[in-house]
Amino acid sequence: MTVPGGATRLDAQLAFLAEADRLKSVLRATTLHDASRRENSAEHSWHVMLHALVLAEHAARPVDISRVLTMLLLHDLVEIDAGDAPIHGDHDPAEQEAKEQAAADRIFGLLPVDQRAALRAIWEEFEAAESDDAVFAKSIDRVQPVLSNLEAGGGTWPEYNVTPEQLESRVGTKVARGAPALWAGLKSRIDAWFAAN
Amino acid sequence: MTVPGGATRLDAQLAFLAEADRLKSVLRATTLHDASRRENSAEHSWHVMLHALVLAEHAARPVDISRVLTMLLLHDLVEIDAGDAPIHGDHDPAEQEAKEQAAADRIFGLLPVDQRAALRAIWEEFEAAESDDAVFAKSIDRVQPVLSNLEAGGGTWPEYNVTPEQLESRVGTKVARGAPALWAGLKSRIDAWFAAN
Ligand SMILES: [Ca+2]
Repeated sequence: MTVPGGATRLDAQLAFLAEADRLKSVLRATTLHDASRRENSAEHSWHVMLHALVLAEHAARPVDISRVLTMLLLHDLVEIDAGDAPIHGDHDPAEQEAKEQAAADRIFGLLPVDQRAALRAIWEEFEAAESDDAVFAKSIDRVQPVLSNLEAGGGTWPEYNVTPEQLESRVGTKVARGAPALWAGLKSRIDAWFAAN
Repeated sequence: MTVPGGATRLDAQLAFLAEADRLKSVLRATTLHDASRRENSAEHSWHVMLHALVLAEHAARPVDISRVLTMLLLHDLVEIDAGDAPIHGDHDPAEQEAKEQAAADRIFGLLPVDQRAALRAIWEEFEAAESDDAVFAKSIDRVQPVLSNLEAGGGTWPEYNVTPEQLESRVGTKVARGAPALWAGLKSRIDAWFAAN
């Protein structure tokens, strides 16, 4: 089977998968738990998926874990072009969104047409944060760096001058929307860290 | 809800997820496509899952992609204790298997009992390589490093003195078992590399 340009369907799939390799070189604001280096967005995506699998019972509403995992597998691919926008950084949301849409056009555009549409739709659903699956996926994407920072003794919170109020408004409200019991369970750990630092 | 030792269920889940972070520091025999550094087993797991999602249509028999993704999400966790055993290396298979079983006892053992049993069963199914889902998952786990090595201009094949016959017997037969059309599609790329090097 051929796709536009004369390449085969498999060629298009392999071109997409090769491009995706670059996500391993996109560095995030968080570090590994041992603070030895910055985390990259590919290994972050794997870790967030593991969090979703293990913490699914804490979802506010029933989720289809298969769809949640697929969203999280794809959610950061656009960072290959658009970069990671740290939640405690000062990027312009509209500009970042435009960059991510252009990135999605290019990167998902490498796939055969049917897969391009299917995977793009899953990513758009995640971004919209409206369906139960997307709301939970977004919660877990927010909670993994909080746990990393706690394990890394505060991690990059001091560097970004994060206050407990900012953490509550930027992260807590979003985690609590998809997994309220999880945020409640983390509050005592977070409060203890800020009390001591 | 409490688990043995007085910790809560959430404490046990978070202890497992924190331990899993160490997979980001387990280095593999393959490099990134740009050959800039060795790949780690966490980002490899993410990339293999993306391969499975995109290449599922090439499976020899129908697969449940959700189960395949879950297998691949978990498949390398034992390497935190047992290390990566490169397919072209010279480790003792029985010794490696014993190490991996001990690692599975310890690492899945961090989870609450019900999740420990469920996740361990999925990992054991992958290792047994008998179900259709496991056979396909194993195929994709073998094909991702082949594609990395091809993209990296041969990657670590020269370092391991890999011959086309070894690649066929150690990798080809296993990829072909789960995804024959995929191996057939890769053969011309592999043959071209060995012809030129
Ligand atoms: Ca993310």
